[in-house]
Amino acid sequence: MTPYEELESRFRELGHLGHAQAMLGWDEAAMMPPGGGEVRGEAMAVVAAIAHQKLTDQALAGLLDQAEGSNERLNPWQQANVRAMRRSQRRANAVPESLVRAKHLTTARCEQTWRVARANNDWPAVSGLLEEVLNLTREEAQALGETLSLEPYDALLDGYEADTRAEAVAEVFSELKAFLPGFLERVIEHQQAPLPLTGPFGEAQQHALGEAMMRALGFDFDHGRLDVSHHPFCGGVPDDTRITTRYNADDFLESMMAVLHETGHALYQQGLPADWRHQPVGRALGAAVHESQSLFVEMQMARSRAFISFAAPHIHEHFDANANDPAWSVDNLYALATRVRPGYIRVDADEVTYPLHIILRFELEQALISGDMTVTDIPDAWNEYMTRHLGLSTSGNFKDGCMQDVHWFAGLFGYFPTYTLGALTAAQWFASASRANPRLEQQIEAGEFAPLVQWLRTHIHGRGQLESARELLTEVTGEALDTGYFKAHLERRYLSG
Amino acid sequence: MTPYEELESRFRELGHLGHAQAMLGWDEAAMMPPGGGEVRGEAMAVVAAIAHQKLTDQALAGLLDQAEGSNERLNPWQQANVRAMRRSQRRANAVPESLVRAKHLTTARCEQTWRVARANNDWPAVSGLLEEVLNLTREEAQALGETLSLEPYDALLDGYEADTRAEAVAEVFSELKAFLPGFLERVIEHQQAPLPLTGPFGEAQQHALGEAMMRALGFDFDHGRLDVSHHPFCGGVPDDTRITTRYNADDFLESMMAVLHETGHALYQQGLPADWRHQPVGRALGAAVHESQSLFVEMQMARSRAFISFAAPHIHEHFDANANDPAWSVDNLYALATRVRPGYIRVDADEVTYPLHIILRFELEQALISGDMTVTDIPDAWNEYMTRHLGLSTSGNFKDGCMQDVHWFAGLFGYFPTYTLGALTAAQWFASASRANPRLEQQIEAGEFAPLVQWLRTHIHGRGQLESARELLTEVTGEALDTGYFKAHLERRYLSG
Repeated sequence: MTPYEELESRFRELGHLGHAQAMLGWDEAAMMPPGGGEVRGEAMAVVAAIAHQKLTDQALAGLLDQAEGSNERLNPWQQANVRAMRRSQRRANAVPESLVRAKHLTTARCEQTWRVARANNDWPAVSGLLEEVLNLTREEAQALGETLSLEPYDALLDGYEADTRAEAVAEVFSELKAFLPGFLERVIEHQQAPLPLTGPFGEAQQHALGEAMMRALGFDFDHGRLDVSHHPFCGGVPDDTRITTRYNADDFLESMMAVLHETGHALYQQGLPADWRHQPVGRALGAAVHESQSLFVEMQMARSRAFISFAAPHIHEHFDANANDPAWSVDNLYALATRVRPGYIRVDADEVTYPLHIILRFELEQALISGDMTVTDIPDAWNEYMTRHLGLSTSGNFKDGCMQDVHWFAGLFGYFPTYTLGALTAAQWFASASRANPRLEQQIEAGEFAPLVQWLRTHIHGRGQLESARELLTEVTGEALDTGYFKAHLERRYLSG
Repeated sequence: MTPYEELESRFRELGHLGHAQAMLGWDEAAMMPPGGGEVRGEAMAVVAAIAHQKLTDQALAGLLDQAEGSNERLNPWQQANVRAMRRSQRRANAVPESLVRAKHLTTARCEQTWRVARANNDWPAVSGLLEEVLNLTREEAQALGETLSLEPYDALLDGYEADTRAEAVAEVFSELKAFLPGFLERVIEHQQAPLPLTGPFGEAQQHALGEAMMRALGFDFDHGRLDVSHHPFCGGVPDDTRITTRYNADDFLESMMAVLHETGHALYQQGLPADWRHQPVGRALGAAVHESQSLFVEMQMARSRAFISFAAPHIHEHFDANANDPAWSVDNLYALATRVRPGYIRVDADEVTYPLHIILRFELEQALISGDMTVTDIPDAWNEYMTRHLGLSTSGNFKDGCMQDVHWFAGLFGYFPTYTLGALTAAQWFASASRANPRLEQQIEAGEFAPLVQWLRTHIHGRGQLESARELLTEVTGEALDTGYFKAHLERRYLSG
């Protein structure tokens, strides 16, 4: 075996450990009874520690040196594979195994505590554990930063979306912060309240509608499934992609859109290059690109009037609705799907206010990692921002304030900005796809999604990590990330209707 | 750390890998979409190989030597723990890692192929793969036999139930083979056909009834769940015990009894000594003892008239049945639950004919492992035995003949005898429990299961592997395994009513 072949064999094994981790994680969120949590956390920490041992094996570093030294004998996919391997290996080597284990165990405990504490609006019940998680994450960020010559927060951010730096993000976000509040006012003035649809909408019907939408878009049920969890997510592996949703009896659109969102993630996962299964180059690019796929499907496509026209008869059928009732008309369904209103909850936010939720978290988590802020300061800072930017006080309301998201409790600091980077990128992809295919809107309305999905498969999904996210965006859309596409999309959708 | 402490730490890690394997296995059977099968097989093979590496680590052997050498400083639980560790270590060292991987990959492929092939009654579609599995198993049996100084088949059997030998099993089975056919004739003559209950019985109602039965017996839903799979089984770990069933719309008793059977396994698992979680001594004894627990609950208790009296109102409630209808009376439900009839399918068999199904498999698998028989010979041999002993031809009917059980296709040779050893042991336990508690029958009828479950907890569940199965049986019941208890139970239930 050449050094490169030996690397492929080692990373194939790591890929299979990743399969075990993905499935244990999915089960933990979608299936596990609460009492199984403690031992699950320990088991996942052991699997993570074994993966860490394999990545920090001295022999692996030597093999990478050799493969990099004979780079010219490798084809571009193999070269990209070695780059992706090196990235994993460097990050793993920056952090001692004891910290990997401690963080897994502590975040598992914190996340499980949070589930109950949030339901009880009980901030003190979990803030101590959150502080432990924060301290471990700061230690991790410090160690990663030293190895990678990055600021601690950047070192975390880089783990979710390579080559992304807080400074550049802050610049993009400041554009949005300047644009959105005024835009939001204009939209609210411009929109009329849609007619309400009154439930209850049965879970079985909502599930069937979700599956119908997934099928229409080409989700492969021989290699995946749809279940229920506390928070919707996409997990599993390319050959077995697990998406989840939750059902609100009063609002079926919430779950339908959540399913479409996760289907965007799932199509990416199922569309990754089959020839590179279990190799790092065959994996998805970072979290921002992943989110650009979910938001491409949910925000760019599924909340368009064309898609709602396609979906309406399915909706009528699943809920036995009278298509002639104005509340069930395409116009009203579209109005419901594009309603803009400031709210407390990020995951329920429309695409206009959503970035404001992200900027709050981005600002706070930078301060938490740098030490400018402590866990104790979070509720007040949250309330202050929400009051100033969205006119909503979260004082005493932890549940719908700083306890609403699992991320920090699960040790995910540096993740939030990727949501909005994803939204911006999605708008830019969609503009490209539309330029390339003048019939796109008609196809969507007719339920012909194959050409659109094929465009994603060819330009994004099937390329894995062959290029960096930045290279891919420039190559496919002809330019670097430009907030103009997102703003133009918002103006078109929310002010010109 | 002392050598013993170091061993505990290493086996704790192995216990957590076992958690991952148990959950991936449960998911594979209960949740996984078919297309996920290939990669799941690979991932499970990798986890198995890592566990094998840890068990065959030279340092582990040294630690075991040291711990055994200073045995007198350990308490009885620790001593038993070292014995159980040594047993795992010896078995692992007998088999090369390449064989462990090959067997995992091949059995995963064979089992997944069998699922489809069985549905199509297509023996040729899977017989080639079964031959591969058999060859690997023979290789494994050979290697284990050499290390353990056992005959190859005994080496397999010993893996499922320690210290059990084919010769002793054959002796016990020949007693049954002499007793059962004549007994069966007498029972058939003695029984009258029960009134039929006609479905369809809804899945949701059957599921709710199953959960009600589990709850009544004390299954802990904070540490477990009930789902659906192709074949009912009990999986997971003590803190997160997963049982499965399947629903027959025409016969709710089938699923109710399957759930009670698995609840017997589950109570054992959930009742294992909490102080010894993740240590070998904290695990269940072998497959025969495990089956003695499921059959204790299903056959000894749940198919008794006392239990049916308790269950009848629950059954009426869940299926909205008229309690005054003679078909729904306790007498008729009891007659349905104890109906004896020769049939094709082992898992559907009554307790009188069941051992005859096992003896068939026991005889064939010994011949397959010794090489006296090949895979090609199986269908004819099956048909011949079934025709002779149960009066049923399986000629051309592979589905209900030699393809009905997953075991061989999943590489489990040497497992079948433990079912009937479990049935014999269950009768012996139940006789002891009844002697110790004269009110047992009344308590069961009143739905007071706590005393009975407590008896199992104290005498069996909570002792893990502190003693061998043989020692435990003798200590608790006062004698070695005696088929007399099983025969007496059958005579009492099926001829004296």
